[in-house]
Amino acid sequence: MEFSSKLLEKAVNEMAQLPGIGKRTALRLVLHLLKQPSEQTQFLSQALTTMREEIKFCSSCHNISDVEVCEICNNPNRNHKIICVVEDVRDVMAIENTNQFKGIYHVLGGKISPIDGVGPSQLNIDSLVEKVKSGEIEELIFALSSTMEGDTTNFYIFKRIKDYSIKTSTIARGIAVGDELEYADEVTLGRSILNRVPFENTLKNI
Amino acid sequence: MEFSSKLLEKAVNEMAQLPGIGKRTALRLVLHLLKQPSEQTQFLSQALTTMREEIKFCSSCHNISDVEVCEICNNPNRNHKIICVVEDVRDVMAIENTNQFKGIYHVLGGKISPIDGVGPSQLNIDSLVEKVKSGEIEELIFALSSTMEGDTTNFYIFKRIKDYSIKTSTIARGIAVGDELEYADEVTLGRSILNRVPFENTLKNI
Repeated sequence: MEFSSKLLEKAVNEMAQLPGIGKRTALRLVLHLLKQPSEQTQFLSQALTTMREEIKFCSSCHNISDVEVCEICNNPNRNHKIICVVEDVRDVMAIENTNQFKGIYHVLGGKISPIDGVGPSQLNIDSLVEKVKSGEIEELIFALSSTMEGDTTNFYIFKRIKDYSIKTSTIARGIAVGDELEYADEVTLGRSILNRVPFENTLKNI
Repeated sequence: MEFSSKLLEKAVNEMAQLPGIGKRTALRLVLHLLKQPSEQTQFLSQALTTMREEIKFCSSCHNISDVEVCEICNNPNRNHKIICVVEDVRDVMAIENTNQFKGIYHVLGGKISPIDGVGPSQLNIDSLVEKVKSGEIEELIFALSSTMEGDTTNFYIFKRIKDYSIKTSTIARGIAVGDELEYADEVTLGRSILNRVPFENTLKNI
């Protein structure tokens, strides 16, 4: 791709560093910004820079926060004895949207993945183990995605805390609500039968 | 979507203003920036702001340029009597990549589209008509997309310049090179028969 302007080229190249944005898409986005009032570009650049410089991570759960300890960890109405272990901030937002969980979170910041060069030391695992050691936690809920990396991470954490008396659980795997049985894969269907729940329980959720 | 941080929310909202970027994608992009060194965000913001503030449009053809008159208009080896009329900068880049055109360009900056509120006065049509009036132009090649808006724009320009002795042409419509005939739509196939070219001409292009 040849550009008639170095400025344009640089902007496109920087934009194309974002995941899932190729050169063509980057050019489309940049040309769109050129057509809009220059304030829009200013606002975007400013919002990104301010966010990157000033954003904090909750010192307790590592969730993104504007203050030292995030709203969830600071909320006395939540059960601080149940910790839901998630991969990243998006998972916290997703679970919060369900309104079903009233405990607190612990954001690992990724999954153990040797292929991507991510080991346990790069994740917020030590601080989680410290919390468990403190004896104030009753239950850990593993809510990582059920991939090989997710399972490895679950197992690694489990091994490090298994000597402390603490309940551990994982979120249920099964057929998604509204899905047809015939299209489900065997592993999921198998697990949904193994982990069947008393029928009375489902009545409560309706 | 509820955010645990106002800074994050603002960055996502600004990002989601870009065309084709929804809130979820914006969140993914912003969280990616958070994981990268803060320089990347700085470079991106800076490249965008500098580009938006300092970029110039060629005073002659309205192409994007770092200088007053763009490289193409400034090139004495190009034929300044043949003007290719295009919609935007991307079309200039696309045609330049073919290496088949040695004339100069005129970038309209859009197409006449009443439904989007774009009239002739918002496009660089007056300056094109002025160029034609000057009598130094021999041929206009319309290279707009063959949509209703493109055809309307072609026709509007044609009506304004038809009293001046100047050749006008449009780029050929036909079956794309490498395409199977059976999958072509009838209009394209029909035009490709009406506008058939002497077989000897095709031999020259190989």
